[in-house]
Amino acid sequence: MANTALLDQLMTALRCLPGVGAKSAQRMAYHLLERDREGGRVLSRLLAEAMERIGHCSQCRTLSEQELCQLCANPRRDQSLLCIVENPADQAIIEQAADYQGGYFVLGGHLSPLDGIGPKEIGLDQLQERFASGGVKEVILATNPTVEGEATAQYIHDMAQQFGIRTTRIAQGVPMGGELEYVDGATLAHAIRGRSEF
Amino acid sequence: MANTALLDQLMTALRCLPGVGAKSAQRMAYHLLERDREGGRVLSRLLAEAMERIGHCSQCRTLSEQELCQLCANPRRDQSLLCIVENPADQAIIEQAADYQGGYFVLGGHLSPLDGIGPKEIGLDQLQERFASGGVKEVILATNPTVEGEATAQYIHDMAQQFGIRTTRIAQGVPMGGELEYVDGATLAHAIRGRSEF
Repeated sequence: MANTALLDQLMTALRCLPGVGAKSAQRMAYHLLERDREGGRVLSRLLAEAMERIGHCSQCRTLSEQELCQLCANPRRDQSLLCIVENPADQAIIEQAADYQGGYFVLGGHLSPLDGIGPKEIGLDQLQERFASGGVKEVILATNPTVEGEATAQYIHDMAQQFGIRTTRIAQGVPMGGELEYVDGATLAHAIRGRSEF
Repeated sequence: MANTALLDQLMTALRCLPGVGAKSAQRMAYHLLERDREGGRVLSRLLAEAMERIGHCSQCRTLSEQELCQLCANPRRDQSLLCIVENPADQAIIEQAADYQGGYFVLGGHLSPLDGIGPKEIGLDQLQERFASGGVKEVILATNPTVEGEATAQYIHDMAQQFGIRTTRIAQGVPMGGELEYVDGATLAHAIRGRSEF
């Protein structure tokens, strides 16, 4: 009642951000209005620009301002090695953490027939064309270690087989620095099955 | 490196929101771009509008689209009773929780000479004029129970005394539902000093 209509609308709009509830939205709105109007204006401008101008790379489907993303346009990246990830955040994390010099293919999700997400919705037709055109020697399946991620990996593996392309899956096991006591059973079973020579 | 320049800028801009670090900003940017572009556009528009159009009420200094806020414009609110709060969020919380029918005065901070925040910066000249013009019978000091909040309350109390206006301070004591064992010493000392007849 004390709030103006516009302020209420702003608080509601802020809740479209992940992890932001009513209380945080209120705090954010008051903070911007009382202490950082310039920050609010800059954020507004960049949001509008980003929603408008950032599309998807025509080759790897990651988020990109250009037709071809920086990674795909880089001639030093080995595009015969293709790392398949579910979304751009996964790609970013691999880029930051690993010394990986190959290319990517970003699905933008995983197979989920019940939600109407089939091969086409995650760009597997485009991936198949890429396999067919030759040039890909190995596919690294880096989908999430979830039921849906595994099913998606299996589907892509089957597809790659038709073209005689080698497929590998990122290793699953106990995380670095973890304590066995706190590792779940499924992960531990995987780690033992996938044991390697010491 | 994989990120476009605009995406990086958006992530940086999102960090102007309180409680949002690098990781949350990344999650927010990806969420909006991959799953809720419409939400991003609406948020952008409302941010711009709010930063532009929401100013301060000329009477009580709270955030308001109009010259006079809804509360000050409401003839059923008793403006001879004035609740002094540090910021609009405090006012909102009192409106939601308490059955309060008086007016407000929003300081927009507290006295803090070391940070260059004197009486003028928190509108005390305007409050003094309001006292001088008559009509205010009681002032409820609802500044925060911190050192600065107490000092500010004391200052306003002294000011009100000059005009013969009654001042009260919101009660301090153990919070409802709290357990004595976990209440800090200062609060407990206050609660005992401020005890009332059972």
